[in-house]
Amino acid sequence: MRFDKEAVDPGSKARAGKFYTAHGVVDTPIFMPVGTAGTVKAVHQRELIQDVRAQIILGNTYHLYLRPGLDLLKKAGGLHRFMGWDLPILTDSGGYQVYSLANARKIVKDGVHFRSHIDGGLHVFSPEGVIDIQRVIGADIIMAFDECTPYPCDYSYAANSLKLTHDWLKRCCSRFDETEGLYGYEQTLFPIVQGSVYVDLRKQSAEFVASSDRAGYAIGGLSVGEPAEELYAITDQVCNILPEDKPRYLMGVGTPENILEAIALGVDMFDCVMPTRNGRNGMLFTTEGIINIRNEKWKEDLTPLDPGLSNEISSFYSRAYLRHLIVSKEMLGAQIASLHNLSFYLWLVGESRRHILAGNFNVWKSEMVEKVKRRL
Amino acid sequence: MRFDKEAVDPGSKARAGKFYTAHGVVDTPIFMPVGTAGTVKAVHQRELIQDVRAQIILGNTYHLYLRPGLDLLKKAGGLHRFMGWDLPILTDSGGYQVYSLANARKIVKDGVHFRSHIDGGLHVFSPEGVIDIQRVIGADIIMAFDECTPYPCDYSYAANSLKLTHDWLKRCCSRFDETEGLYGYEQTLFPIVQGSVYVDLRKQSAEFVASSDRAGYAIGGLSVGEPAEELYAITDQVCNILPEDKPRYLMGVGTPENILEAIALGVDMFDCVMPTRNGRNGMLFTTEGIINIRNEKWKEDLTPLDPGLSNEISSFYSRAYLRHLIVSKEMLGAQIASLHNLSFYLWLVGESRRHILAGNFNVWKSEMVEKVKRRL
Repeated sequence: MRFDKEAVDPGSKARAGKFYTAHGVVDTPIFMPVGTAGTVKAVHQRELIQDVRAQIILGNTYHLYLRPGLDLLKKAGGLHRFMGWDLPILTDSGGYQVYSLANARKIVKDGVHFRSHIDGGLHVFSPEGVIDIQRVIGADIIMAFDECTPYPCDYSYAANSLKLTHDWLKRCCSRFDETEGLYGYEQTLFPIVQGSVYVDLRKQSAEFVASSDRAGYAIGGLSVGEPAEELYAITDQVCNILPEDKPRYLMGVGTPENILEAIALGVDMFDCVMPTRNGRNGMLFTTEGIINIRNEKWKEDLTPLDPGLSNEISSFYSRAYLRHLIVSKEMLGAQIASLHNLSFYLWLVGESRRHILAGNFNVWKSEMVEKVKRRL
Repeated sequence: MRFDKEAVDPGSKARAGKFYTAHGVVDTPIFMPVGTAGTVKAVHQRELIQDVRAQIILGNTYHLYLRPGLDLLKKAGGLHRFMGWDLPILTDSGGYQVYSLANARKIVKDGVHFRSHIDGGLHVFSPEGVIDIQRVIGADIIMAFDECTPYPCDYSYAANSLKLTHDWLKRCCSRFDETEGLYGYEQTLFPIVQGSVYVDLRKQSAEFVASSDRAGYAIGGLSVGEPAEELYAITDQVCNILPEDKPRYLMGVGTPENILEAIALGVDMFDCVMPTRNGRNGMLFTTEGIINIRNEKWKEDLTPLDPGLSNEISSFYSRAYLRHLIVSKEMLGAQIASLHNLSFYLWLVGESRRHILAGNFNVWKSEMVEKVKRRL
């Protein structure tokens, strides 16, 4: 997978670039909407393209493996065909969900034994198995199997976990290099830097991961409850070690503010459930700040959701109408809020890119951070 | 409101026509998607136009009165503006929901006292009040306040109820004739024929209602649990009494089969929650019959939802994908099923119209009824 770095912001470490997959080119920095089980919740595929202007979406290996399952995905010719999405897809390795969702998990050298959160069935994820699963799913970018350490996490746990993650990475790389995609197009493997909030572990991990010589690298184990300062400090440290000429993906991050700050540190790719999950609960991210649409103050506000966005959804529906839908628990409320928030997130990374290319990202970012974090 | 009868099927009493409202022309026979609280559940407004090809939707006075409430609707300039729907709207009178949803209802000569199903608040619906409410909502077609009798219903209850409904109709007509629309366009009042399953009461009611000399008439109190034969017999009897040159609206009906049979009896307008409600539960109405998408037999069926429909949704998504979404309780499943079913219902009335205009409706209908009622 080729990555062209097009520009670096003179006032920060922000980069603009493009990477090339079998399903199309992606402009960076980019945000990837989360399509957990083969669907970005409450959003049609065509809306992701036409309204959100998504260029790549994320699928969750754990969910897809359990439902619809590998037999059907293989029969369909992979996830792209199964869900009707022709643009790039990235899948996580399932590691995160095994820890956050599955029951009775037991980590052994071979991998993780766990019980499905759906029916209690017993399953095993191993580094090799997770590569095989992601070959069947057929995402353009697939992730190595890791342990995402919780926060807080004591040093010895983090150090031992990192050994395991690095051992698993070697096994993932071997399996990946020995196999081929099932559907005639190239897939790319991204390793993941772990090490919790420990500077020496993060250094060791970033160097180890960089030495695996892959087409892109991810930073995992952040945005799990640590203070924002730690998130930024670790991200900065790791970005300084990872190669300049490869895309960097900060997993599971974050708020609009987090994304702007991480772009300034040299991150190129993001994913987060926040725009859709918080949207379903009535939280709107806008160009002027954060709106809790359930608040009485929006009850009679007949102005558009966000006059600063040009997409059809954000200008068509009013705040009062969306509030009515969310308060009344109408599904259209979740649909509109998800579409709006995703559109805003894609606008945010698109504007970041525009300002990086124009050479004034850092100035714009400083103003923008103040706007996007305030509560309206 | 003008109604132009364009054709009558030579083999049945089916009619094709057009009626003209301030928000546009509607081709009949027509099906009206139900937009309970200012939203057709799980469907965007633009999807109703582009995919479903809806020409008119229905709003529920009871729901809209409680939420978002009249103050906000008035401030917005009526429901059309509040929800962003520029085509015609019909509102029911709230009578049906007062009986089916509200608590502690008490019918008095003046109207109905009830408690909101949302917060238990006390409210009164009177014939005059319901007209006033529908003036604020601003639907193009508004309904008289009636009592929708249950099934079964003993004769004396039905007879007394009918007296009340007729008394209320007179009061609705007076209030309607003394007032004007609030937003500068014309509204039209439809009276409702009641009388349960009693032929003499239905005759009396149809004659009384017809004598009110309105631009259209509705048949209520059916599809409440009675056998299909009673539904068709009463519909036939009432259609034979109602004027030929006015549209006839059979409220709350029904299955695709019910709709085809009622069109053959001379009904022009329909509404029903079935395509959306049953869709959310995984029941698909198709050109070949009824699919329960939860059934194991669709698990690996990668063919489109309904190859017989040309709309984008029904040909884009596969049965296996929709089954996965519905089984996984993903919102997109409800969205797709609702869009598909509504598209099918609009296709069904559109094809009916085409065959009426071509003079071969009855032949087509006989074949179609066999198809649409079978379980696939």
